[in-house]
Amino acid sequence: MAGDVPVNIEMIRAAAQRLAGHARNTPLLSSPFLDAIAGRQVLIKAECLQHTGSFKFRGAWSAITALPQQTKGVIAFSSGNHAQGVAYAAQLRGLTAVIIMPRDAPRIKIANTRALGAEVVLYDRATEDRDALGKSLADARALDLIQPFDNPQVIAGQGTTGLEIAAQARALGVTKAQVLVCCGGGGLTSGIALALEADAPQMQVRTVEPEGFDDVAQSLESGHVVTHPLRAGLCDAIVTPAPGKLTWPLMNRLCGPGIVVSDAEALRAMALAFERLKLVLEPGGAVALAAALFHPEQIEGESVIVTASGGNVDRSVFLRALKEGERDAAC
Amino acid sequence: MAGDVPVNIEMIRAAAQRLAGHARNTPLLSSPFLDAIAGRQVLIKAECLQHTGSFKFRGAWSAITALPQQTKGVIAFSSGNHAQGVAYAAQLRGLTAVIIMPRDAPRIKIANTRALGAEVVLYDRATEDRDALGKSLADARALDLIQPFDNPQVIAGQGTTGLEIAAQARALGVTKAQVLVCCGGGGLTSGIALALEADAPQMQVRTVEPEGFDDVAQSLESGHVVTHPLRAGLCDAIVTPAPGKLTWPLMNRLCGPGIVVSDAEALRAMALAFERLKLVLEPGGAVALAAALFHPEQIEGESVIVTASGGNVDRSVFLRALKEGERDAAC
Repeated sequence: MAGDVPVNIEMIRAAAQRLAGHARNTPLLSSPFLDAIAGRQVLIKAECLQHTGSFKFRGAWSAITALPQQTKGVIAFSSGNHAQGVAYAAQLRGLTAVIIMPRDAPRIKIANTRALGAEVVLYDRATEDRDALGKSLADARALDLIQPFDNPQVIAGQGTTGLEIAAQARALGVTKAQVLVCCGGGGLTSGIALALEADAPQMQVRTVEPEGFDDVAQSLESGHVVTHPLRAGLCDAIVTPAPGKLTWPLMNRLCGPGIVVSDAEALRAMALAFERLKLVLEPGGAVALAAALFHPEQIEGESVIVTASGGNVDRSVFLRALKEGERDAAC
Repeated sequence: MAGDVPVNIEMIRAAAQRLAGHARNTPLLSSPFLDAIAGRQVLIKAECLQHTGSFKFRGAWSAITALPQQTKGVIAFSSGNHAQGVAYAAQLRGLTAVIIMPRDAPRIKIANTRALGAEVVLYDRATEDRDALGKSLADARALDLIQPFDNPQVIAGQGTTGLEIAAQARALGVTKAQVLVCCGGGGLTSGIALALEADAPQMQVRTVEPEGFDDVAQSLESGHVVTHPLRAGLCDAIVTPAPGKLTWPLMNRLCGPGIVVSDAEALRAMALAFERLKLVLEPGGAVALAAALFHPEQIEGESVIVTASGGNVDRSVFLRALKEGERDAAC
């Protein structure tokens, strides 16, 4: 495994070359209405518009295109977005994909992963060890394991988001800003932090997590890895027990203090993204926007950049968000 | 007034220069799931991501930046999207904007127009003549009238959408396709048709309208302008009684037969845009996608391009769309 290879800016730039023409350079959006709520300029990197509805396609494509020619196929475990990213990237490359998903993942994510040609293996989040299951299947079928975040080429792929943010913000005259990133295992966060260190050194990455799942914020505060029990949450895409082995040293070196938002705030941010940006976000993809809108006192600077990292949401949860957002609504 | 000045490709290219850095070059999106439903590649020009949530900002910015320096301000009449486009463009340029809106326009559109700094004057669609009202206010206050479609600089601004479509499709290897455009008065349609005639001559524009409001389709079929009684409809953004005086000759010369979709199909397309594109569309902005998905037999070619022209929808209508779309849903 490549697990102990460090990640660096050259790997991110190489991933960007492999992604060119395959991943989308997603827009950096804004709305005067959101600026008014936040009290500063808010720029939203709309990764929900990425292939498969989340940034995860970047890391998947980066990792799969870095595999040796003779690969027999790939295997991944994921709450859903990484699964879809790997399934679609593998399908586009003509490779077999086996995806191990928790039985309680949103139905749309399971259905989409199957529809993208992958073989889905379901497991029980509470009683089964997904890492062990993944390893045994990978060994038995000689598949290459694509880890959701602790994989250098995955981190490099997610880091291409940061290269785009730096260039797009610069085009708008913004070179100094805090960059709020929806944070699960830290692949997107650490990749963006590495990219910005090189291309926008006056920007600082801040992690955003949901209440009760703030293992990264606690880790950053204490200076060592804090591990939470594994359990399910509304923000399923970013519910992880601890920062990753590869991502933690990067986040610890490069990120400012973590921000924590409530589930209700994530839902309200979804409603405002619907109304003001015409974007569909999932709860885990809306926490960074929620932090910008509802915790402005924890943020510094005239501009803030947020990742809107995914939009794969069951319609029942989306309806709940529109209802929750009524208090902020203009109509 | 400039009402009798013809529109040409040079005016569209000049508008594109004025729009650069001010309007968004919106992405051309796709989904393998939508391709499967349509039976061909579907490329979606996401103008709902334009400033103010619809393509109308383009025409407004184009027209306002073409006014003489000494203008006292602008006035517009609109069911809502043109209103927001003009209000925001005027606000960015530091100009007064008076907007005449029908009393039954979606509340979000009225609220947004006011929030963008405009003075809103409401009128009754059934009993009052908006053109006469607009003219009398324009005369009394010496404001420049920005017509929603029968204005050469507005058409030129909307036409920049076509320049982008031609370039973005070419980058994907698509140079031959039918281009389905959500059609009200025909500003967007005729602008895109002019742009494609120059930059993508193997593309053909087709208009798409809701059932019962197919004045343009009937006009195209009969070869002369057909006028319908003015009334309200679900697809409020594109409910117009007749093609425009300037837009009709362009559409008659350049467009293929019109396509008509039901309100239910527009709602189902909205639900699929939610699920597969992570985009919020309004009914009038979803009719072209609905035509691609549900009337494939009326379309020719391996690829079809559709405008997703607006996303300013009341949440009650959006909830109705998600409900209507359940029959197509994966979850």
